[in-house]
Amino acid sequence: MILEGIVSTVDENGGLNIAPMGPRLEPGFDRFVLRPFRDSTTCRNLLRHKEGVLHVTDDVLLLARAAISKVSDVETRPAERISGRVLLDCCRYYEFRVVNVDDREERVSLVAETVCSGWIREFLGFNRAKHAVIEVAILATRLDFVLFEEVAIELFKYRRIVEKTGGAREREAFAFLEARIRDVATQRGFDMDQAR
Amino acid sequence: MILEGIVSTVDENGGLNIAPMGPRLEPGFDRFVLRPFRDSTTCRNLLRHKEGVLHVTDDVLLLARAAISKVSDVETRPAERISGRVLLDCCRYYEFRVVNVDDREERVSLVAETVCSGWIREFLGFNRAKHAVIEVAILATRLDFVLFEEVAIELFKYRRIVEKTGGAREREAFAFLEARIRDVATQRGFDMDQAR
Repeated sequence: MILEGIVSTVDENGGLNIAPMGPRLEPGFDRFVLRPFRDSTTCRNLLRHKEGVLHVTDDVLLLARAAISKVSDVETRPAERISGRVLLDCCRYYEFRVVNVDDREERVSLVAETVCSGWIREFLGFNRAKHAVIEVAILATRLDFVLFEEVAIELFKYRRIVEKTGGAREREAFAFLEARIRDVATQRGFDMDQAR
Repeated sequence: MILEGIVSTVDENGGLNIAPMGPRLEPGFDRFVLRPFRDSTTCRNLLRHKEGVLHVTDDVLLLARAAISKVSDVETRPAERISGRVLLDCCRYYEFRVVNVDDREERVSLVAETVCSGWIREFLGFNRAKHAVIEVAILATRLDFVLFEEVAIELFKYRRIVEKTGGAREREAFAFLEARIRDVATQRGFDMDQAR
């Protein structure tokens, strides 16, 4: 089972990095496998320091922003059992230590063990708009590998779901991602409005 | 914000009905609006008795089964503050009373107020496979209004997400829905395997 969450790590100067991450986990969150790309900040930080915090959140605006930009305006506090930082606004968090590293592939495989966890607020539950935003965020990070004709069709479909089932935060997250996708399309000479 | 949850109601003989439902809610779950179709069991039960239980769950197999069949093998216990039943396996539940009815349209609008709530277990968090199942479940209830060519394309796309990010329960839910969709397609003379 892959969870779409947020991992915080710190660099050698204590600088915070937060990144969306899809750990493969067993029931209970005691142990999970992170697979960051070798050249990502999360991977560099975890290979050096081997501690971080996995957050479960239902805040898709934060996930969307972290997926395509460096987010530095979130509030955090020091972690309890590791050297790292916990997002103040999340549902639950799992402070972890990396206990095994396999760096033979482009995506480095890091086995993590939870050393401490905490609860902050309830995860809302299933909401189609939130998931539409997550799919669009994934799309927005893969624009080098997809056809813009198909992106335009997906955006059209997901926009309807967001408008029908989302709240203000989901609409803001969708608009943020759509603007980014349109910028990239324009740079590459593709007119999103002509696509459909 | 529309939550995809499960509502339990009881009929005049105490018979349990559980149905997927997408209430529109304000933050906090104190008050929400249900919009069941007039001819649904949930609607009949709520117009008669005006009490029920809204459940938040991350169990997509139950959601999938309830979307396209009558589910009668779930364990429940009596609700605390209303006359109704609570699913033993869910994340949270909200016992409610209907305080306003507007039945001028095909979908009856029922304003509900929570009178009591409870917590059973954590909602896992974002998982793409779970949401793929929800989208396919919605698709499976709308086969009269969509083209099978498009259903086949959607199924292909969602199957990849379920295989890549889901666990055994998500795969079972997907297979259950896919079998149902294929049955309907075959009855209508459409060959799903030729579609792509």
